[in-house]
Amino acid sequence: MFYHKKQLQYFKPPEKPDAVYAKKIQELIGGTFGEMTVMMQYLFQGWNCRGPAKYRDMLLDIGTEEIGHIEMLATMIAHLLDKAPVKMQEEGALDQVVGAVMGGSNPRDVIMAAAMNPQHAIVSGLGAMPADSVGFPWNGRFIVASGNLMADFRSNLHAESQGRLQAVRMYEMSDDPGVKDTLSFMIARDTMHQNQWEAAIEELKADGLESTPVPSSFPLDLEKREYAYQFWNHSEGTDSAEGRWAKGPSMDGKGEFEYVANPQPLGPEPTPPQPDPRLHGTPKTQQMQGTGNGSVIERREIGG
Amino acid sequence: MFYHKKQLQYFKPPEKPDAVYAKKIQELIGGTFGEMTVMMQYLFQGWNCRGPAKYRDMLLDIGTEEIGHIEMLATMIAHLLDKAPVKMQEEGALDQVVGAVMGGSNPRDVIMAAAMNPQHAIVSGLGAMPADSVGFPWNGRFIVASGNLMADFRSNLHAESQGRLQAVRMYEMSDDPGVKDTLSFMIARDTMHQNQWEAAIEELKADGLESTPVPSSFPLDLEKREYAYQFWNHSEGTDSAEGRWAKGPSMDGKGEFEYVANPQPLGPEPTPPQPDPRLHGTPKTQQMQGTGNGSVIERREIGG
Amino acid sequence: MFYHKKQLQYFKPPEKPDAVYAKKIQELIGGTFGEMTVMMQYLFQGWNCRGPAKYRDMLLDIGTEEIGHIEMLATMIAHLLDKAPVKMQEEGALDQVVGAVMGGSNPRDVIMAAAMNPQHAIVSGLGAMPADSVGFPWNGRFIVASGNLMADFRSNLHAESQGRLQAVRMYEMSDDPGVKDTLSFMIARDTMHQNQWEAAIEELKADGLESTPVPSSFPLDLEKREYAYQFWNHSEGTDSAEGRWAKGPSMDGKGEFEYVANPQPLGPEPTPPQPDPRLHGTPKTQQMQGTGNGSVIERREIGG
Amino acid sequence: MFYHKKQLQYFKPPEKPDAVYAKKIQELIGGTFGEMTVMMQYLFQGWNCRGPAKYRDMLLDIGTEEIGHIEMLATMIAHLLDKAPVKMQEEGALDQVVGAVMGGSNPRDVIMAAAMNPQHAIVSGLGAMPADSVGFPWNGRFIVASGNLMADFRSNLHAESQGRLQAVRMYEMSDDPGVKDTLSFMIARDTMHQNQWEAAIEELKADGLESTPVPSSFPLDLEKREYAYQFWNHSEGTDSAEGRWAKGPSMDGKGEFEYVANPQPLGPEPTPPQPDPRLHGTPKTQQMQGTGNGSVIERREIGG
Amino acid sequence: MFYHKKQLQYFKPPEKPDAVYAKKIQELIGGTFGEMTVMMQYLFQGWNCRGPAKYRDMLLDIGTEEIGHIEMLATMIAHLLDKAPVKMQEEGALDQVVGAVMGGSNPRDVIMAAAMNPQHAIVSGLGAMPADSVGFPWNGRFIVASGNLMADFRSNLHAESQGRLQAVRMYEMSDDPGVKDTLSFMIARDTMHQNQWEAAIEELKADGLESTPVPSSFPLDLEKREYAYQFWNHSEGTDSAEGRWAKGPSMDGKGEFEYVANPQPLGPEPTPPQPDPRLHGTPKTQQMQGTGNGSVIERREIGG
Amino acid sequence: MFYHKKQLQYFKPPEKPDAVYAKKIQELIGGTFGEMTVMMQYLFQGWNCRGPAKYRDMLLDIGTEEIGHIEMLATMIAHLLDKAPVKMQEEGALDQVVGAVMGGSNPRDVIMAAAMNPQHAIVSGLGAMPADSVGFPWNGRFIVASGNLMADFRSNLHAESQGRLQAVRMYEMSDDPGVKDTLSFMIARDTMHQNQWEAAIEELKADGLESTPVPSSFPLDLEKREYAYQFWNHSEGTDSAEGRWAKGPSMDGKGEFEYVANPQPLGPEPTPPQPDPRLHGTPKTQQMQGTGNGSVIERREIGG
Repeated sequence: MFYHKKQLQYFKPPEKPDAVYAKKIQELIGGTFGEMTVMMQYLFQGWNCRGPAKYRDMLLDIGTEEIGHIEMLATMIAHLLDKAPVKMQEEGALDQVVGAVMGGSNPRDVIMAAAMNPQHAIVSGLGAMPADSVGFPWNGRFIVASGNLMADFRSNLHAESQGRLQAVRMYEMSDDPGVKDTLSFMIARDTMHQNQWEAAIEELKADGLESTPVPSSFPLDLEKREYAYQFWNHSEGTDSAEGRWAKGPSMDGKGEFEYVANPQPLGPEPTPPQPDPRLHGTPKTQQMQGTGNGSVIERREIGG
Repeated sequence: MFYHKKQLQYFKPPEKPDAVYAKKIQELIGGTFGEMTVMMQYLFQGWNCRGPAKYRDMLLDIGTEEIGHIEMLATMIAHLLDKAPVKMQEEGALDQVVGAVMGGSNPRDVIMAAAMNPQHAIVSGLGAMPADSVGFPWNGRFIVASGNLMADFRSNLHAESQGRLQAVRMYEMSDDPGVKDTLSFMIARDTMHQNQWEAAIEELKADGLESTPVPSSFPLDLEKREYAYQFWNHSEGTDSAEGRWAKGPSMDGKGEFEYVANPQPLGPEPTPPQPDPRLHGTPKTQQMQGTGNGSVIERREIGG
Repeated sequence: MFYHKKQLQYFKPPEKPDAVYAKKIQELIGGTFGEMTVMMQYLFQGWNCRGPAKYRDMLLDIGTEEIGHIEMLATMIAHLLDKAPVKMQEEGALDQVVGAVMGGSNPRDVIMAAAMNPQHAIVSGLGAMPADSVGFPWNGRFIVASGNLMADFRSNLHAESQGRLQAVRMYEMSDDPGVKDTLSFMIARDTMHQNQWEAAIEELKADGLESTPVPSSFPLDLEKREYAYQFWNHSEGTDSAEGRWAKGPSMDGKGEFEYVANPQPLGPEPTPPQPDPRLHGTPKTQQMQGTGNGSVIERREIGG
Repeated sequence: MFYHKKQLQYFKPPEKPDAVYAKKIQELIGGTFGEMTVMMQYLFQGWNCRGPAKYRDMLLDIGTEEIGHIEMLATMIAHLLDKAPVKMQEEGALDQVVGAVMGGSNPRDVIMAAAMNPQHAIVSGLGAMPADSVGFPWNGRFIVASGNLMADFRSNLHAESQGRLQAVRMYEMSDDPGVKDTLSFMIARDTMHQNQWEAAIEELKADGLESTPVPSSFPLDLEKREYAYQFWNHSEGTDSAEGRWAKGPSMDGKGEFEYVANPQPLGPEPTPPQPDPRLHGTPKTQQMQGTGNGSVIERREIGG
Repeated sequence: MFYHKKQLQYFKPPEKPDAVYAKKIQELIGGTFGEMTVMMQYLFQGWNCRGPAKYRDMLLDIGTEEIGHIEMLATMIAHLLDKAPVKMQEEGALDQVVGAVMGGSNPRDVIMAAAMNPQHAIVSGLGAMPADSVGFPWNGRFIVASGNLMADFRSNLHAESQGRLQAVRMYEMSDDPGVKDTLSFMIARDTMHQNQWEAAIEELKADGLESTPVPSSFPLDLEKREYAYQFWNHSEGTDSAEGRWAKGPSMDGKGEFEYVANPQPLGPEPTPPQPDPRLHGTPKTQQMQGTGNGSVIERREIGG
Repeated sequence: MFYHKKQLQYFKPPEKPDAVYAKKIQELIGGTFGEMTVMMQYLFQGWNCRGPAKYRDMLLDIGTEEIGHIEMLATMIAHLLDKAPVKMQEEGALDQVVGAVMGGSNPRDVIMAAAMNPQHAIVSGLGAMPADSVGFPWNGRFIVASGNLMADFRSNLHAESQGRLQAVRMYEMSDDPGVKDTLSFMIARDTMHQNQWEAAIEELKADGLESTPVPSSFPLDLEKREYAYQFWNHSEGTDSAEGRWAKGPSMDGKGEFEYVANPQPLGPEPTPPQPDPRLHGTPKTQQMQGTGNGSVIERREIGG
């Protein structure tokens, strides 16, 4: 069960509205690696967790923190959309550009009105939306909760990497002190969370719960071990032979990397079975005369 | 530019058709972590790669290999759908169950016809589809290609973890020797690919290109360092204090973990600006009299 | 900022696992009117609210409650998926049905393994997912937060109506005492929430903030009043003349309903302008000779 | 069965083309509450209606009217896209802005070419599309048709509220007399339709078919009545105690609102069952040794 | 503007309910090539049509007919869902299978309750939905309306081919006389519509409006003619040399097919430009020291 | 199995970056008829092909070629995004427009930064994405692979028509010699591919595998032949009587077109069965008293 406090975890308002920046920062709310993703991902992982209590509790802690991050960004967007130039005045475009030279009004408004997310005016009435920077809605396929904590913590480490990368890019794309201050808090939290998931991955290993290859509870002798450490060079040239992945002991300590410079198929040419004639696909030889109600039983014996 | 050889990379056909298993194994083609995802992810990362040539070449090698994995699974599904019982015969349901006892035909067909993916009959004519095990189509938001190789390699390590986990689950869910043999090859390749991405992550560090926190090219003094190693305990109880993430040196070697047992907000209560009256949202005080054409300019001065 | 308590708001575990029921009850988590929708809808409405404080606070209260409803249902699904028959044993289908008669094992397992949501085994490892009962992911277009509280409260009243209707249907579809007990709590909360939104709608009127037609801040004389109370009968027969909507004073008290039994168009035949030839659409008369690089400027004068 | 007349229900062409406004007005065709939604929603409700004939007929009347509304807006968009500046000329950007001052061509074209919906040129050849103002396609999850008329009429009342709100916002965002005239007709129809659904809700009550809480055919004693009128205050502060929803008789006349200022969980801590080892999730205690083919039966007895 | 008649274009009710068949036949309503697609496709093509009046009128005729096809199928589904076994009775599964042998109730109900589309019970209350046979919603990207009539008529011919193929498959999958009778009407209409689009394609050629290659208004000398009739053999083996596409005069009568047995790249190796350092991608050489606020201007000169 | 060569099939780099054109040309990668569609469509058709070897081989040849087309366009986009103006400098907007007149910097940068696809900066770090020109992701429902080669080749002919139309539109929208040169190669390949599919359609007929109506293996006497050549005029006016589709022999040579000027319904008014009371829909007559646990069995006899 959940509770809410009215204050934000952290926040500095932007100095100036900027409707186009508001459109862009939606990526951090509803994008593939936005706050909605990490919030939902950690909560679902926590709710589904059957592992030791410390993992479940930790997942629900950080998931609960992330709800508050959406709240911060939603508030930011409300400020950025203040006085958004909802109308791109018909005649004004020309006038305002002229006016810009003459000392008149701001042509930036015209560009803003043309380039802002139109749904910020029409649909949400100057509020944040559960969508990304091109207006594509957040969806449940963005999150990962597999029941295998190592697989999931690798996802979490990854999500915080993309998340921090995108927050940093937004930081570089702004000159507004309020925006930069708020983002510098969120970037710091992403630093923590990258560290946290690296620590959690080590903890899983230390607890003997998982290791490479994931899932480690599957007996290795059930996989074709002879192909488990080969790098197949599927392209001309061998630049790819120069990396750590091409030679030396494998990272799991259970094999030796091998570079296959000129790989050849191990399987046969495919021969998919001929289709059931009742489905009227194209067979190898000339189409038999029409099927239908009466002929179902015989045809079944032939093809189905 | 790409070329094709007719033989499959590896393949053993299933011993028996099984339309419901065909539905399930679609997850490995078109699911979030199916072969379409890793193929497209590695190719786009390769095409967009501006890093050293060995990384670009390696990405295109493995991306090209993955196209062939879709081909293997598509062939598998064509075999599994052979003789799929496209009709759930009206009267037959009862008869066949009785018949099962009397020595007659197979009730499994009835269940299959009811539970198979209907699009395997109606839409694809017994062929594989670019969709997952519930029929949801693969889409481009499943892939990650950010231009930052460390962020992306963490995604790749993660994708191969989920991918191997799902392949292993499919292996456990089958008794068919052909299916199990083919999957044991793919599981081995996933072992290689987990090792490969761990190696590539080490290589990036060794090359001085990236480290934690990603992106490491962003100056740390621009983030709020005082919050960069704190674990905030957002729930009652302190099970989460027991993990590696709650104390000791941080994983990036640049700080010390700190456990904040009773975290309090650092920000103010939000006060989003009042809405432009032309958007007809609900303001703090009683709605002003109607706006409209004539009143735009004054209203702009008031609210917009 | 948000906090979590470990206990559930309310919960009785199911007496028996039932993987097919688990698939169905996903509708209440991730369906169009599931708990993810009301949670996100109320939180976004709250975060974007510029109206009086009591509305904002109330929205955040109920939004925070709904997070806990997802938690309850996710726990329910974990129990329902316990011992899910992940494998539909090849030979077993026949044997088990025979066995059912002979006193052997349960044919229900075979049907379950065929008809359960395959992603509950392959993807989530027996955990809840942010998707509906056919596996379609929840997405951000499911929620409504327009900035106009009356428009939004009508959405909320509606959402709680569909939500209670679906919960009641799930109640009727189960015989499990634990499931029914938990649902009877959620159904009661839906009763409260329907009452709550009806009350909130009255409050908005009492506060003079909104009334029919929404948005009431738009001057009525700017709409074509002569068509504002007409019912147009677009079909043969006049059954539709028998309803309250066809005669008598309009509900907003500002007009009189009128039944137009044989409506005729008021507008002209459409004449969309001829296309720019550089876009190579099909014009009214024979296609002019090819455009291209050289001819852009002249063509522009003609068509663009 | 349906018929078409060539004239539009109502229409005034825009005075001037405006490609950016054409992008925005797509919201009224293919947005969540655009004309495609109400058309499809009313038709599906009508086709699925088992209630009295007057409701079915009325639903099909208004659904048929709405097809014509899409037609009007599609025609509007064709006019708005006339002479859309498909090319943002390389050198021209600079020149045209300079030119604007010097008396030359229009910089508005440059902005238009950059900010218009690119698919209006590339995909539809200057025609309307079944998508919203950010280009996201209309989809079937936008509509509601539950079989319960009260639940659905509440949706309809809501849809007409959002629809009118968005049409009004588009009206405020335009200076074009033709656009404003056409919209003022559509806004008037939305006024009618809000009144119509309020009337239809009253009619359902008068006919004894439904009342609050929906569905009213579910016996109230099957829900946990003790929680059916409580407001739970999930946040600090009690602004939410000030509303109509917090005290006094409930709106359905069957209870009394109660304000729970400091709500506590009624349920236990969750204890989801341990996972089937064949799914290789992370258990509470150290992972048992690998499963696999040979060990399936025993493991089944342990975990599955 | 549109009108409705109460009678269906054609209809025979099914003899027996069949909830699983109801799930499958949704493909013909809301699938990629279902009636919603052809209806919307023809209407949008008609509304956007700038070609001669006969084409526009014809498109709106057939689009209007297709609305009635959805109506027929929706009615069919309502009948098929009659008495759908909404509950899969807990104990009943075993009992009913036993009972089937003993002369008791029908095990088909158990399978139906497990395998039907759960949303037909929970969401639509036994009504049709705007979705396909796996429950995926119809969406606007399914339709084509490009403004070029030849391109679009090829789409229409194709859509009617897939549509008839799918209707035929549904026919083969049923034994119900009512279902088969109704489908045999729809299959006949698809025959007409394939003929109609072939005729319309000929008419466009006869009118001199379009021919191969589409769009024919683009001057051929602006394309690289030397590659306009070559077949590139991208795979081992030359089975593909045996078709009409590999030799002889091209179909447009403007060239000669040529078979390139061993194709080689004509372009260079790609060299994408180095990334702007403010975006923190991975460059070719070691990452430069951190950017940030202070260093933006210089960095811009280096990379941006 | 697949192989890669480092060189591109064909390529000329653009002379100048243009971030807005980069956004638009995404349509050719990830749009409904972009290269991802034809690549996946031809590969899946090839993998699922059970027809003669020449068709399978040909499909895999062209599918493999199309992978390389994505590669060319991805490289193009990387060049177009070079030096993309990631920041729309706060004060700069005004200054730069003034500056443009005064001889200063380029206002085009300001417009670019506002109108470019924000994800090209935030998400992909200046790389191509698997999405279209409005940022909507490519998805698996875009492709067609039905198992019936005639149905599919009609789709392929159509896809190459839309593809060439869109490439031509992009050509007309650019002045950049590199862009135009590369597009003129792709347009030529589309010319080949339209010719190729027309040839393949003729080949299928010559091989006796398919003809109109598709599927031709379905016995014609099973469809209602009396409606198989009628054009129904669903609208006022008879412009549609003037086309080839309204009179004369049908295109399949098996009938005569007939124009039905005033079509009337052939079916009855719909009477969908009354709903199961356990689903709480609205029935024809007053709602019976509440159902529930105790009353299930009797109610079943009444309604279910």
